[in-house]
Amino acid sequence: MINASSIELQTVGMGLIDVMRWGWVVVVCEIRRMVIISCRMRSEEREREMSADQFYAMNGGDGYQSYAKNSSFQKGAIEVAKEIIEEEIRNKLDTEKLSSSSTNIICIADFGCSTGPNTFHAMQIIVETIKKKIEKQLSVSHQMPEFQVFFNDRISNDFNTLFASLPQDRQYHAAGVPGSFHDCQFPKASLHFAYSSFTLHWLSEVPQEVADPLSPAWNKGKILYYGDKNEVFNAYAAQFAKDLDSFLKARAQELVFGGLMALLVCSESNHTKNISTITFPSFELLGSCLMDLAKEGLFDTAKVDSFNMPLYFPTPNELKALIEKHKDFSIERMEILSNPPKRFTTPDSKSFAMFLRAWIEGLLRTHFGNAVMDKLFRRYEQKVEESKLLSNPNENSMMTFVHLKCKRIT
Amino acid sequence: MINASSIELQTVGMGLIDVMRWGWVVVVCEIRRMVIISCRMRSEEREREMSADQFYAMNGGDGYQSYAKNSSFQKGAIEVAKEIIEEEIRNKLDTEKLSSSSTNIICIADFGCSTGPNTFHAMQIIVETIKKKIEKQLSVSHQMPEFQVFFNDRISNDFNTLFASLPQDRQYHAAGVPGSFHDCQFPKASLHFAYSSFTLHWLSEVPQEVADPLSPAWNKGKILYYGDKNEVFNAYAAQFAKDLDSFLKARAQELVFGGLMALLVCSESNHTKNISTITFPSFELLGSCLMDLAKEGLFDTAKVDSFNMPLYFPTPNELKALIEKHKDFSIERMEILSNPPKRFTTPDSKSFAMFLRAWIEGLLRTHFGNAVMDKLFRRYEQKVEESKLLSNPNENSMMTFVHLKCKRIT
Repeated sequence: MINASSIELQTVGMGLIDVMRWGWVVVVCEIRRMVIISCRMRSEEREREMSADQFYAMNGGDGYQSYAKNSSFQKGAIEVAKEIIEEEIRNKLDTEKLSSSSTNIICIADFGCSTGPNTFHAMQIIVETIKKKIEKQLSVSHQMPEFQVFFNDRISNDFNTLFASLPQDRQYHAAGVPGSFHDCQFPKASLHFAYSSFTLHWLSEVPQEVADPLSPAWNKGKILYYGDKNEVFNAYAAQFAKDLDSFLKARAQELVFGGLMALLVCSESNHTKNISTITFPSFELLGSCLMDLAKEGLFDTAKVDSFNMPLYFPTPNELKALIEKHKDFSIERMEILSNPPKRFTTPDSKSFAMFLRAWIEGLLRTHFGNAVMDKLFRRYEQKVEESKLLSNPNENSMMTFVHLKCKRIT
Repeated sequence: MINASSIELQTVGMGLIDVMRWGWVVVVCEIRRMVIISCRMRSEEREREMSADQFYAMNGGDGYQSYAKNSSFQKGAIEVAKEIIEEEIRNKLDTEKLSSSSTNIICIADFGCSTGPNTFHAMQIIVETIKKKIEKQLSVSHQMPEFQVFFNDRISNDFNTLFASLPQDRQYHAAGVPGSFHDCQFPKASLHFAYSSFTLHWLSEVPQEVADPLSPAWNKGKILYYGDKNEVFNAYAAQFAKDLDSFLKARAQELVFGGLMALLVCSESNHTKNISTITFPSFELLGSCLMDLAKEGLFDTAKVDSFNMPLYFPTPNELKALIEKHKDFSIERMEILSNPPKRFTTPDSKSFAMFLRAWIEGLLRTHFGNAVMDKLFRRYEQKVEESKLLSNPNENSMMTFVHLKCKRIT
């Protein structure tokens, strides 16, 4: 081994002339052998991760059916929560402690970020508010911390689109973190602020019993828990409780002591079995469209029987009770969000169908195939138009804001 | 504002009944207006970032022409460097200090990771070696640190493919970091180990004068610096020096004091003007293929005149001198890598052309268009076959390993 200060470079185990002779070219010969092995390994890995994962992704890219172009609804919710988040950071985040830490880095994560642009808007609100608070406290000896923002979503999320649209003028270092938020995705005590919006209604899986024809919870002919079977509803509620538990356990590990978490949760004022009042985008209308297509012969009705959406919308009280079981978090604030002011005009059925398509098409495509998607969403748009849904909106759906503080010492 | 301990949730600025009436649906009405604004903003941003960026990306996806399936050559280089990296970590990384730090997290970054699988292999080597070293030092009061590995590459890199093929059994938390490694991509003093392999030969841009017909450095009819013009060579060498300077300045900011950096650099034993010995994948053969296609009328010869590859392969001595200018780093070790043992068989021209295609097709496609790519690489394969390149390999190309330690106190 030589010292680098010597200009005469030596090779490891071979003379310089040998190296020259073989050049790099000999290495290339490995291509065939290694390609075969690595391809086999990669396709198996990929299959395993992606199969359980891909139907959760919002529509990728930035085409007219993409989530990126059909998620202003979710942006509206963040706009409404903005003031509360700002107030909570001002009052509850111990920035004095943070800005005097040895690393001088503040880490923020958005769990379930999708492809933007909403996540960028939310992260900007959080970074700017923390910065403003720290500016007031800065002493001569302390520098403004740097910000590192982690964009988390499932592996099948379109991170390429997310990265391509990162704001040019962002005040933070950006990173994407692929993986389910039901598991730990960060080192212990590495995050100072966690955020998750419009995400917790996604279950990690469909409760097994609702897809089992032998179970009393078999959800025949329905795609969510809006039927009249208590067993179906209970199976969904239990799955949500289990998933929320996993989510909170993972975040309790990842957040520093005193770290904050803002959650925007799609919820329902109550769980009524009456199908006319259930859940905002009217999943029973979507279910009836699927049954129509089955009756027209596009697929068997058994295909609808075996399809169930991994979604659940808790009531605020249910959410509160489940969170309170976790001694690692204190609920600092919980509110039902007011809706944006009257500058909004009446929505139309086309935009409404497009919004739903960007949100859940992946799920439907995996089960029913790509070929029927256009027809399905045209039918849905038509049914929304004929219904009173838009002029007389569902009164059961709401967005709940929860702000938590981590009390766990890791 | 209410206290969350009360079960009666209130709304901000509106009564509960109002919220119910408006539901979420009113928010949806914003879709049209916001979509128009956000789409316009996103496409402009994207265009700006992507136009300067996209030709640097290796071929994405995992198809037969992808980098993922044609990068065993690069893997070979890492295999050879494995023992040296392990030895350097054992001897030079102050793991005692790292494992007793307050955060107990070790951060590693691969700059220019592409789509895998090579980056996973390299990261596994580094993580395992650091772990082994720490295990020997662990006291009862200290826990094994957690590892966070950051995969960096340009925004146009196919991060979706990278994430989809992350090893299941990895011993670290993974994150993708989009952006040029010529700029800072991480907070100050946040990395403990930096790695970059087969990347530094990519210039941030083609030196402007070589594409300028009015400049004495105009590189007419050539695509790299293998002609007989000193001005062309000097322009390329100056651009490399400038880019390496940016790279090292950025890493000096990001690495902790005592942090290590391993670089695997494609280099040449000397810069000869004789075209028969220049640069491994024989860019003069590629240049002559482009001229052939121009003569056949597929595009104008002016198209070849205006095309120059943003690549430069320094000599080890040149590399050493440029690094030594940086007082923030000490060169701990520098070696020309030996080639893998004799288990390699003779490479064939098809694999060789495929390897080059996966590596630089993006660059050629941007300038010459997609339509001529198949023809170009078939011609290249044929010329490689006819030449003595594979049976009598170029003796001028080599891979240089450099190991640096950061001495900068940030």
